[in-house]
Amino acid sequence: MIKIFVTGGTFDKDYDEKNGRLYFKKTHMNEILVLGRSKVEVNIETLMMLDSLDMKEKDRQIIVEKCTTTIEDQIVISHGTDTMTNTAKALGAKKIKKTIVITGAMIPYKFGTSDGLFNIASALAYVQTMPHGVYVAMNGRIFVYDKVIKNKDTGIFEEIK
Amino acid sequence: MIKIFVTGGTFDKDYDEKNGRLYFKKTHMNEILVLGRSKVEVNIETLMMLDSLDMKEKDRQIIVEKCTTTIEDQIVISHGTDTMTNTAKALGAKKIKKTIVITGAMIPYKFGTSDGLFNIASALAYVQTMPHGVYVAMNGRIFVYDKVIKNKDTGIFEEIK
Amino acid sequence: MIKIFVTGGTFDKDYDEKNGRLYFKKTHMNEILVLGRSKVEVNIETLMMLDSLDMKEKDRQIIVEKCTTTIEDQIVISHGTDTMTNTAKALGAKKIKKTIVITGAMIPYKFGTSDGLFNIASALAYVQTMPHGVYVAMNGRIFVYDKVIKNKDTGIFEEIK
Amino acid sequence: MIKIFVTGGTFDKDYDEKNGRLYFKKTHMNEILVLGRSKVEVNIETLMMLDSLDMKEKDRQIIVEKCTTTIEDQIVISHGTDTMTNTAKALGAKKIKKTIVITGAMIPYKFGTSDGLFNIASALAYVQTMPHGVYVAMNGRIFVYDKVIKNKDTGIFEEIK
Repeated sequence: MIKIFVTGGTFDKDYDEKNGRLYFKKTHMNEILVLGRSKVEVNIETLMMLDSLDMKEKDRQIIVEKCTTTIEDQIVISHGTDTMTNTAKALGAKKIKKTIVITGAMIPYKFGTSDGLFNIASALAYVQTMPHGVYVAMNGRIFVYDKVIKNKDTGIFEEIK
Repeated sequence: MIKIFVTGGTFDKDYDEKNGRLYFKKTHMNEILVLGRSKVEVNIETLMMLDSLDMKEKDRQIIVEKCTTTIEDQIVISHGTDTMTNTAKALGAKKIKKTIVITGAMIPYKFGTSDGLFNIASALAYVQTMPHGVYVAMNGRIFVYDKVIKNKDTGIFEEIK
Repeated sequence: MIKIFVTGGTFDKDYDEKNGRLYFKKTHMNEILVLGRSKVEVNIETLMMLDSLDMKEKDRQIIVEKCTTTIEDQIVISHGTDTMTNTAKALGAKKIKKTIVITGAMIPYKFGTSDGLFNIASALAYVQTMPHGVYVAMNGRIFVYDKVIKNKDTGIFEEIK
Repeated sequence: MIKIFVTGGTFDKDYDEKNGRLYFKKTHMNEILVLGRSKVEVNIETLMMLDSLDMKEKDRQIIVEKCTTTIEDQIVISHGTDTMTNTAKALGAKKIKKTIVITGAMIPYKFGTSDGLFNIASALAYVQTMPHGVYVAMNGRIFVYDKVIKNKDTGIFEEIK
């Protein structure tokens, strides 16, 4: 059984017709797994629905605590890309004996051109195969939590040597 | 560098407007990787464009030989689901010292409801993390080449105990 | 109230996962109208689900009779493109005092690249504005029933001068 | 020849990956016409790219002047839905001897669930068939410029009796 913690981010943004803004309604995680015909056993739990730029220290503490206390050994976290590596570091510092993979999207899943589906599929495969540790899965690659930055100019996640 | 061998299958079927049939034009592998913003280094090569029910023994031999002789250590193969496990067994018998992951789709990528994107993302992650061996990646899961069957009734890939 | 008669055609073809063929399951007419947020009052009735190349004289007679006897004054017919103009002529010969607009698609609606949604929206607008008569609505244009052919090479509907 | 004036609106909003906001890049009008296989002769001109809530009186004057001076007799305008009826009234007051149809979308075209394609197809059909006058085409229906309001609660355009 894999735990999936939903925290919001671009990945889950929807278009609010009433005021023309992007907002969070509910996660698209389940419909992605249905579309992908995934038969991996998962347990999805929405912890928060936040733009990761609005994520506070206390929000990260909730994520850390939830990852620590959940009984599953393999955890995927959907997260905004802007502060994804911060949350990864907060988790990494805890030395939790689990495999935790954080992912997200540059474009909302509901946009035709989203990378969200690709990233979730990628994270689900990595969480089943990587040894214990905290990772970021983006751009088809897997990064150790303290060896990765998001290049603000290109939007690409890069390894820190 | 990951080698991607394209062999056809439902995954790459397009709609032929002239006669109203499904056919192969060219692979959608590259556009999937662009959509997923994949930065994994890949080398895509189309070996054949066949419905896997039309795949002959000689076609499987081409796949085996190509996997044996290509210089890359990690190989993803896109393949029709109907005889995917046959090709996996042909490859497994050769004991090639590489990681080879075969995947495909139940619905053509060009259909809105396709599982193709999910499966390719999944296979790309698995090929980077699994030890040497031959595998089938479907339904978000990874199977050893001789421990998997496609359930003809449900279309789901299942592990043979 | 507008009557919509569904007769099949490329427009409504789905992908059959069991045997890898295109087939008819049920019409996508209603989901198109929902997507387009159409508030036009319609009454959808499926008369048959046929590839228009398989449509026989008796099938056309059903369409003609249904158009004659239905109480609505405005009728849209979804139809395969190959023999769309034949059905238009069969209807035109009857001099029914209604506005009848036939449309279809070159690519199944479920394909991402389908022209089906565009054509249905177009036909719905035309049926509300054209005088009594039988028409074909394709490529954003409206054609009188006996002044149109499908160009087999290009797939484009053209006016006969 | 039909003139299409692009003015922005939800219809043409894209997702800006750099800062996570919606913005205008360039119009999607042309790709919609290609997808719909439209063979209607059109001349597309972008007048502005504005959220219609940000549209000022001077912007409306530009639209009015452009509609007055362009040589085409049939004009489609893509426009944000919030003040679409205001622009319709500004145009209607001028008694221009042309057929002018204003349309837009509740959801950006680039979202999978957009009504934009449906509305453009609808507007293109109406502009070819309606007598001279100014109209709003939304929800599959056509409204005279001073007989329509947008219901703010439902997002549906309704006729004023």
